[in-house]
Amino acid sequence: MTDASRRDILTHGIIGASLAAAPSLTLAQSGDMAKLRKAVDAGNDAAIKRIQEWISLPSIAAENRDMLKGAQYMAALAKDAGFQKAEIVPTKGHPAVFATLDAGAKRTMGIYFMYDVKQFDPAEWSSPPLEARIVDKPGWGKAIVGRGAINQKGPEATFLATLHAFRAAGVKLPVNLVLLAEGEEEIGSPNFSDAATRPDVLAALKRCEGIIIPAAWQDKQGNVDVNLGSKGIIELELIASGAKWKRGPAKDLHSSYKAMVDSPSWRLVQALQTLVTPDGNTPAIDGWFENVRPLSAREKALIAENAKRSNEADMKTSMGVPVWIDDLPFQQALERLASQPTVNIEGLVAGYTGPGGKTVLPARAVAKIDCRLVPNQTRAEATRKLRAHLDKRGFTDIEVNVSGGYDPTETAEDSRVIRAELATYKKAGLTATLNPRLAGSWPGAVFTAPPVSLPAGHFGLGHGSGAHAPDEYYVIESTNPKVASLPQATMGFADFLYQIAAIS
Amino acid sequence: MTDASRRDILTHGIIGASLAAAPSLTLAQSGDMAKLRKAVDAGNDAAIKRIQEWISLPSIAAENRDMLKGAQYMAALAKDAGFQKAEIVPTKGHPAVFATLDAGAKRTMGIYFMYDVKQFDPAEWSSPPLEARIVDKPGWGKAIVGRGAINQKGPEATFLATLHAFRAAGVKLPVNLVLLAEGEEEIGSPNFSDAATRPDVLAALKRCEGIIIPAAWQDKQGNVDVNLGSKGIIELELIASGAKWKRGPAKDLHSSYKAMVDSPSWRLVQALQTLVTPDGNTPAIDGWFENVRPLSAREKALIAENAKRSNEADMKTSMGVPVWIDDLPFQQALERLASQPTVNIEGLVAGYTGPGGKTVLPARAVAKIDCRLVPNQTRAEATRKLRAHLDKRGFTDIEVNVSGGYDPTETAEDSRVIRAELATYKKAGLTATLNPRLAGSWPGAVFTAPPVSLPAGHFGLGHGSGAHAPDEYYVIESTNPKVASLPQATMGFADFLYQIAAIS
Repeated sequence: MTDASRRDILTHGIIGASLAAAPSLTLAQSGDMAKLRKAVDAGNDAAIKRIQEWISLPSIAAENRDMLKGAQYMAALAKDAGFQKAEIVPTKGHPAVFATLDAGAKRTMGIYFMYDVKQFDPAEWSSPPLEARIVDKPGWGKAIVGRGAINQKGPEATFLATLHAFRAAGVKLPVNLVLLAEGEEEIGSPNFSDAATRPDVLAALKRCEGIIIPAAWQDKQGNVDVNLGSKGIIELELIASGAKWKRGPAKDLHSSYKAMVDSPSWRLVQALQTLVTPDGNTPAIDGWFENVRPLSAREKALIAENAKRSNEADMKTSMGVPVWIDDLPFQQALERLASQPTVNIEGLVAGYTGPGGKTVLPARAVAKIDCRLVPNQTRAEATRKLRAHLDKRGFTDIEVNVSGGYDPTETAEDSRVIRAELATYKKAGLTATLNPRLAGSWPGAVFTAPPVSLPAGHFGLGHGSGAHAPDEYYVIESTNPKVASLPQATMGFADFLYQIAAIS
Repeated sequence: MTDASRRDILTHGIIGASLAAAPSLTLAQSGDMAKLRKAVDAGNDAAIKRIQEWISLPSIAAENRDMLKGAQYMAALAKDAGFQKAEIVPTKGHPAVFATLDAGAKRTMGIYFMYDVKQFDPAEWSSPPLEARIVDKPGWGKAIVGRGAINQKGPEATFLATLHAFRAAGVKLPVNLVLLAEGEEEIGSPNFSDAATRPDVLAALKRCEGIIIPAAWQDKQGNVDVNLGSKGIIELELIASGAKWKRGPAKDLHSSYKAMVDSPSWRLVQALQTLVTPDGNTPAIDGWFENVRPLSAREKALIAENAKRSNEADMKTSMGVPVWIDDLPFQQALERLASQPTVNIEGLVAGYTGPGGKTVLPARAVAKIDCRLVPNQTRAEATRKLRAHLDKRGFTDIEVNVSGGYDPTETAEDSRVIRAELATYKKAGLTATLNPRLAGSWPGAVFTAPPVSLPAGHFGLGHGSGAHAPDEYYVIESTNPKVASLPQATMGFADFLYQIAAIS
């Protein structure tokens, strides 16, 4: 997932103005806007059906499930929504999809989609994950429940509904569009950069003002975050094994032999504990902070503002966390969240993992690790430094299997994309929080880094949650006046495109 | 399991004399022996069926599966085999079974049974684990495959077959018998000591020369081990959690929050690494070696002899281990195996354990640990010292959940039980290796420690393997002339009982 859907946790105390009180999301002539709204309403049933049908075809890169089919479906969706060209872009992995819509406009906007979804276990769901059943979510309203509902087919299909509405209403799009969709987001976008830098794709992207991924992360107060960047990440496995170590057993052994046989599990523990400070909170990998850029005065000011506007107690409760690291006050904790690289243990696996015990000496022990990176760290640098750190301490046998990752991203506050987002939210009467850096990570670095070098971020009204979890959902008919229903979210994208076209 | 079935790995280089070449396992009058042998042969089909039917009723303490039924079945088996009294002994957990057979003999022998078996997953088996199908095991012969086949129903039912043969042949048993069977061996015998020390049970046990559990661990050369003791063990989970720590998350959290939230997984790693030396090979828990008794000159001499007679290369190959700890020569490695206490990681479990990664900050991390204990360490002492060690380092929040364990055992080389075992094996033409201490562990401490204070060990001919694993088996018709078939193993117990009766 884009890993940014944490907005629902960062609940703020401020009550935003009600959407219902500001129904006209418009910069265009009221005539066009009225026509669009009419078309959106008329197309709402079709838009819902579009989301449901897309959910019924899950493309799962990790399982190599329906990938080409998913790419073909994505291309067809784009064509259907008015893109004149939609082409499958082969990669070394699963294909991307590249589409363009020339509206004869002055400006061009980039759109990033992912057509893949996370794995799922139907047994954990309260309705079949591919059925996309419409259920009542108390406090939110009617929602589509299904894999990919919020991450990311629901919001993406909503953007497509906007394009359908323009066509149905006979209203000219205010900007041209370049769409790049990938099918490997959930496995860390290993080949997406290749697709984005194919000469013709790159040339098209270079014409864009910026690029957004459609999102729908309004909280219960209707608030949204506008992120000026995101942390990078490397995800990896550290593996200690008898096979590589040439000590210890090649296969699990009876534990009584520990007295004469070395243990890969202890080897892993010893290597792990060198990676962080004794409190587990600061990376201790050699040279890790060399390129870390401290927060700027502006970033600190934004965090101070956010700290004041956020409800620390609510956040602690919803996260199930009694105290922040070092018992920091809220503002410093938020500064730490935005500014500090991390080395996190996602999982530990060795030997017997079931209930009770089993007397084995495991041949292999694995730590699943993610390292969050901040500007100006890079994924390549982090990977290299981790390897060097282990080697220097004699852990040359410990495998470092990097499965994916992204560089950090940064998008200027004064870019047209950010200003258009803020203007759109403001028109809708919503409180948008400027967040200097999302602590999560997403493939935006493909766009923000050279050679593409575009502003990139998330945009959208509406609400959904449960990315990667059972009962993932996307609200289509909101009972909360501060949160957009599907038609309002659809209009939100229209207004955003007008903002992009009109902003100075 | 009694954890001692490692004999099949410790292959020795010596070729024992063939069983076929020494068919008359006898001290008794040849007339009685001939009658017994005839009865054994006549009862062989019934004996096989007895094993199969017992396997078809799996009592699994960890799953609370058929425990009372299993105890009742055990009592019925004892009665059926000639025990005049067989009684279910309630405990705080699952019941034990206590049975006595008064043969009017001078001496009394104790027999320990377990009626429970280890959990199993039928999907991993090549024939249904409760069907007890007879299959051909290349290199061994016809074997019963099923859960409990070797651990321990097969050998136990073979002992019962011996008693049936005495009765069928009209031959008087040379010793009286006291049988104590438990149903919680596979969960660490938490209540067995209570059963063994119930006044009437204790009184009966006190009359015994010693106590054996039937076993069948001949290797391909026909060799067997006679163990003069075994290591003790504590099995436990070390658990770090946000809930107990009052830091970190109470439930798994998105990993981006690591920058402001403490990690129970790192907490566990830090605690773990204090428990052993940096090479992972020597316990570093405060005071751990205080009561450790070094090997005696006799024990060292036995190990030196065993090292000479064993094939180090074969042992390394079958264990999949290229080198011993510290690149020790074989004899020192075997000394380490017998003499050193260990702290072993059986398993590690935290957060996401599936394929690939998942960006979570786990709320809980668990290390499954077993600590092997040597004389004169005790389970109680080890548990106490581990807790104190963690507390002293500030890890008061880390839970130590001891799930089971045994004290070390020691049985004197000059006890009647050991001498009778050696004599029986010698008569059978087998090479018995005197092993000063089994590195594995079994509930024998219940018998060797006060107040029971009996010599205790394993005895039996025959072969089986795969305890706790899929396709566990017990050979009933051996194609290897050095390894006993079921009738020979049945006669082996008869001979052993005569040895006990006759030995000075």
